[in-house]
Amino acid sequence: MTANKIKIGIMGATGYAGQQLVSLLMRHPNIEIDFISSNSYAGLSFDQVYPHYTKLISDKLISMDEAMGRMDQVDLVFAALPSGEVFRVATAAMSSGIRLIDLSADFRLKDKSSFEFWYKLSHGAEELLPLAVYGLPELWRDEIKEARIVANPGCYSTASILALAPILRNDDLVDPFSVIIDAKSGVTGAGRKEEISLLLAEASESVKAYNIGMHRHTPEIEQEISKVYGDKLNVTFTPHLMPMKRGILATCYINAVTFCTDDDIYDIYERFYGRFPFMRIRREPLETRYVSHTNFCDISIKVDLRARRIIITSAIDNLMKGAAGQAVQNMNIMFGFEETAGLMDQMPLIP
Amino acid sequence: MTANKIKIGIMGATGYAGQQLVSLLMRHPNIEIDFISSNSYAGLSFDQVYPHYTKLISDKLISMDEAMGRMDQVDLVFAALPSGEVFRVATAAMSSGIRLIDLSADFRLKDKSSFEFWYKLSHGAEELLPLAVYGLPELWRDEIKEARIVANPGCYSTASILALAPILRNDDLVDPFSVIIDAKSGVTGAGRKEEISLLLAEASESVKAYNIGMHRHTPEIEQEISKVYGDKLNVTFTPHLMPMKRGILATCYINAVTFCTDDDIYDIYERFYGRFPFMRIRREPLETRYVSHTNFCDISIKVDLRARRIIITSAIDNLMKGAAGQAVQNMNIMFGFEETAGLMDQMPLIP
Amino acid sequence: MTANKIKIGIMGATGYAGQQLVSLLMRHPNIEIDFISSNSYAGLSFDQVYPHYTKLISDKLISMDEAMGRMDQVDLVFAALPSGEVFRVATAAMSSGIRLIDLSADFRLKDKSSFEFWYKLSHGAEELLPLAVYGLPELWRDEIKEARIVANPGCYSTASILALAPILRNDDLVDPFSVIIDAKSGVTGAGRKEEISLLLAEASESVKAYNIGMHRHTPEIEQEISKVYGDKLNVTFTPHLMPMKRGILATCYINAVTFCTDDDIYDIYERFYGRFPFMRIRREPLETRYVSHTNFCDISIKVDLRARRIIITSAIDNLMKGAAGQAVQNMNIMFGFEETAGLMDQMPLIP
Amino acid sequence: MTANKIKIGIMGATGYAGQQLVSLLMRHPNIEIDFISSNSYAGLSFDQVYPHYTKLISDKLISMDEAMGRMDQVDLVFAALPSGEVFRVATAAMSSGIRLIDLSADFRLKDKSSFEFWYKLSHGAEELLPLAVYGLPELWRDEIKEARIVANPGCYSTASILALAPILRNDDLVDPFSVIIDAKSGVTGAGRKEEISLLLAEASESVKAYNIGMHRHTPEIEQEISKVYGDKLNVTFTPHLMPMKRGILATCYINAVTFCTDDDIYDIYERFYGRFPFMRIRREPLETRYVSHTNFCDISIKVDLRARRIIITSAIDNLMKGAAGQAVQNMNIMFGFEETAGLMDQMPLIP
Repeated sequence: MTANKIKIGIMGATGYAGQQLVSLLMRHPNIEIDFISSNSYAGLSFDQVYPHYTKLISDKLISMDEAMGRMDQVDLVFAALPSGEVFRVATAAMSSGIRLIDLSADFRLKDKSSFEFWYKLSHGAEELLPLAVYGLPELWRDEIKEARIVANPGCYSTASILALAPILRNDDLVDPFSVIIDAKSGVTGAGRKEEISLLLAEASESVKAYNIGMHRHTPEIEQEISKVYGDKLNVTFTPHLMPMKRGILATCYINAVTFCTDDDIYDIYERFYGRFPFMRIRREPLETRYVSHTNFCDISIKVDLRARRIIITSAIDNLMKGAAGQAVQNMNIMFGFEETAGLMDQMPLIP
Repeated sequence: MTANKIKIGIMGATGYAGQQLVSLLMRHPNIEIDFISSNSYAGLSFDQVYPHYTKLISDKLISMDEAMGRMDQVDLVFAALPSGEVFRVATAAMSSGIRLIDLSADFRLKDKSSFEFWYKLSHGAEELLPLAVYGLPELWRDEIKEARIVANPGCYSTASILALAPILRNDDLVDPFSVIIDAKSGVTGAGRKEEISLLLAEASESVKAYNIGMHRHTPEIEQEISKVYGDKLNVTFTPHLMPMKRGILATCYINAVTFCTDDDIYDIYERFYGRFPFMRIRREPLETRYVSHTNFCDISIKVDLRARRIIITSAIDNLMKGAAGQAVQNMNIMFGFEETAGLMDQMPLIP
Repeated sequence: MTANKIKIGIMGATGYAGQQLVSLLMRHPNIEIDFISSNSYAGLSFDQVYPHYTKLISDKLISMDEAMGRMDQVDLVFAALPSGEVFRVATAAMSSGIRLIDLSADFRLKDKSSFEFWYKLSHGAEELLPLAVYGLPELWRDEIKEARIVANPGCYSTASILALAPILRNDDLVDPFSVIIDAKSGVTGAGRKEEISLLLAEASESVKAYNIGMHRHTPEIEQEISKVYGDKLNVTFTPHLMPMKRGILATCYINAVTFCTDDDIYDIYERFYGRFPFMRIRREPLETRYVSHTNFCDISIKVDLRARRIIITSAIDNLMKGAAGQAVQNMNIMFGFEETAGLMDQMPLIP
Repeated sequence: MTANKIKIGIMGATGYAGQQLVSLLMRHPNIEIDFISSNSYAGLSFDQVYPHYTKLISDKLISMDEAMGRMDQVDLVFAALPSGEVFRVATAAMSSGIRLIDLSADFRLKDKSSFEFWYKLSHGAEELLPLAVYGLPELWRDEIKEARIVANPGCYSTASILALAPILRNDDLVDPFSVIIDAKSGVTGAGRKEEISLLLAEASESVKAYNIGMHRHTPEIEQEISKVYGDKLNVTFTPHLMPMKRGILATCYINAVTFCTDDDIYDIYERFYGRFPFMRIRREPLETRYVSHTNFCDISIKVDLRARRIIITSAIDNLMKGAAGQAVQNMNIMFGFEETAGLMDQMPLIP
């Protein structure tokens, strides 16, 4: 396992996920950033877009086209672009012989027609789908290690799949067809968009449900937990928007088919996740602030004996374990770096 | 239907629910407030406790003992006191021959032992339980009209029961034993308490689950929906705290046992709630800000055809329809006033 | 003093100030709303734009052109439009013989060239300037009563002028040339704009200064306090944006030229504002929540004996006393209604 | 200049400033933490108090008494204790021959009677005052290097003094007796206290002024700027509480006595602060989020030519440059470490 420095590029460096990538990779011991690009802010320096970074990061943002031209100078490119825009990046990256971590949804769904149904876009790089690995390290670390393309999971999907995988490996305990996921997210999950409904004056002091039964992370969750379970599963997935910036709490419900206690289920989760550096199994109810600005995924369990149901909650930071943090974790695995490299510098926030 | 002015007293007028009562009743056309009392602030005027009300409400707060002594001068007393403290108030009110609206949980559960199990308190007025009616006007208006004691429902319970009652009357469509309620509340639901976890510095920018499978509103919800359904039901109820002041969103899940569409279910709800002034059935997803500072309960429906599940969401303001507003609505019914009297003056807030 | 019902129209009914006007006027006892108009949402009903108002306000929004055509059917029009767009409305209103309350800045500055300097717009109705009265009732009530056009003051200006007027009438106590105003506003002051910097994800957890020494309310403040003082005054005015929706706190500094105590200054303010229904003089420091969603202006005073400086703070709700509430107050005065009519229904918010 | 590892202890490790110290020092390359103590949580581990730190910091918290007993095992102790409680710590530290960084106010005021007047406490270690240096590195770095006791500045004081020092060295430009400081702080400035007024339900959506003309940081600011100026100065200082967690913006006003431009003043500040790693002079208005969770102090300048006044704004994070960050910076200077050591790991937050 070698740990030389690699050269990387970041496309889409000024969105919420992109800037988080810049922030993490700037401090990463095994990385040299070759370029950062932005469609909206090409020509400006990073700290002109984000004055927080004055005296810290003044790298110039190059255009998408320039970034495409620099692809053979790097070992890896991160694409933090809207869905539908990574197909041509991937094609270029593959012909340049470099590796790609894609934070969009373009390579997450193995089934092209499912992608086209949920995203209302035609798939622009079907032939590359076999090269893509779903980048959830706690499930597919070995595949990630060798992958040419890593499809970095959606934020809701990360929280949901991590909450459900262990129990679905124990189908003598639960009815795998009874899964309901009620998820709550901060507003950065919607991206950095000029939208009335995301204004402080509109989005604070309110919680809302949206896209009920129709959110695009649903097929991704189903694909992955079906793989874990071994048969095709459907879930009910309901996303909600919270009046806060970051964080996801996923409250997952599954019917017990046999008597079991909290401890029984905790055993399963502790065994499943014991060796993973970013998983924290907790005996108390979760709060998203505990994981805010970290790459941790917290999990807590409660058996509702009266209703014979198991409630598994998981909490992540949607821009870290739900996006940029997980992308860095994937890179660490792909290139044989320490799995936590560059991810432990930013301490949790209190308050 | 007579509409003479009545005299009322408010016990516990400075908690969050109590002050909301004062605010509503000060403007109510059929009411004269005889006294307001407070354990913590007796002797002060209302606007000394809440300077918002300077030049508007300067009534003196009397002590609990004084309030007990004035009971025979009023027609109705509101008790916005902690659970366990209303038993003696109720006993006094009944012997004074007046009526009582109790915002605590003391008379909500018909089964004394259930009360004692969930609240870890002994029931101090078992003999009065037959006089108490569960004060949810959309279900029990006729009984409320005649009631000596109205047990004003809990905030979570109001949102949950209103969301579930119509569909449970249609048990050919759904499995009544499959109900899951995932509820999200603002922090005023926890009361006006000096608690580190409720500080702005701790509670903002975070969402948390709490009391999973053990919240005290669970037996209340089960009691009422069992009455509606006609047989004993258990539910899974999971409360969450949101970083905002007011509002509850209850996302309710129930399994469909036959094929049905959004329209089928909307039909049921529109027929069930059509004539009720505070119910609003919406075709779009809910946001709690739409009901903030009003007595409305909004309901929206979505059938998840893929997973054969019906998702009913309801939104209320926890201090209005979830507490003080509903108490005033109950009073209006008890005394033959217009059901909306005093409840439409405060227009919704934008922004 | 007659109190017949009048007919009014509201132009720009869906901005933050406009919707507040609709909300207030819908409940006003002396008003019939003839039309509400909106450039962006013409054709929709009010509650389609603001679902908060379902079952409450379903009036259709008409276009600007239709509104212009209906001008002779009303007694009064409110223009809650951007600066520069009210000139032609005013011209039409004057030829229709109706009265106008203008919530923009178009008629606030008596000096045309000052308007053109600060607003970078040419003045489109110079000939109407003599018809316009600056609509601050606590200073110019008699003039407002007779005015054809009332120029409704800016939000910052209202808070600042009310804080400063009494002390400037006492120039033996203070140096009138030493005025500094440090003002803090909620984000609705910036309007309902699709702007990245106003997103919850960007504007929460931060305070910022902006337009230092250059804010457009400066000439308005100077014009009015100069009138009060009797000679031309300049002020330093610094606006700040707070992470909240509503409210302005103006902290005003002025040098004392003679020894004086808190009581001396309180005397002046209590005499000056004693008979005004919306002025509240307080002995404690101010909090904007005390005036939130009301038409009150709170004032508090502190003499800094060590530095020989008087600090006067004022608090208003920027959409009420700072915009729509004051507009209704002006209308009440213009048409001989009770000054508080329609302004006391919405009780203060706790919490 | 050697850079060996030193051993340190932290007293008061669970308050807002204390926990920030723990977080910074855990990652500091030249530090070994010997003990952390807490009056309220002795016996618990750090991550039991702050579950954010599970898997990161599980050090046990010892009692105050135990901490006093360990004093001779460390090179330096940080006291993040309430004012009045550091006198005996200092006495013990001095007799143990170790150094002390005191985050309370106990050694900030050189004049014992001034301390006793402002803090209503008797000074318990007058004899140690000569050993104490006011720990503002941008002014007194040389003194700090040798100091036995460093009195770490107050948060408001840091922002104010850094904003004012350069201009006060240029008294041909300004009237040094005309200084007004209008400061805005997040709620963590008030500490981690169980107080109704600090609840999310009370403190959000509001801004308030407090302690006008009487705040305890006033004498500290005056002492320091008087030293800089060379004669005794008084200032008017007005603190305000903002609805956010962290951050201070200080808007400082001073009268110009001669014509000067923005550039003239920027020259002065750029020369004064050019070589300091944590000072950032900006041409645009400040936002506290730019410095949030960093040790930077941002400064911006505007000359109000119309009113002949200079407005200097400064922004810091009150728990970093305003408390723990500055304490670490002081330690770095005292022990010859890199001045930025341990202070650049936590990148700025977006969003």
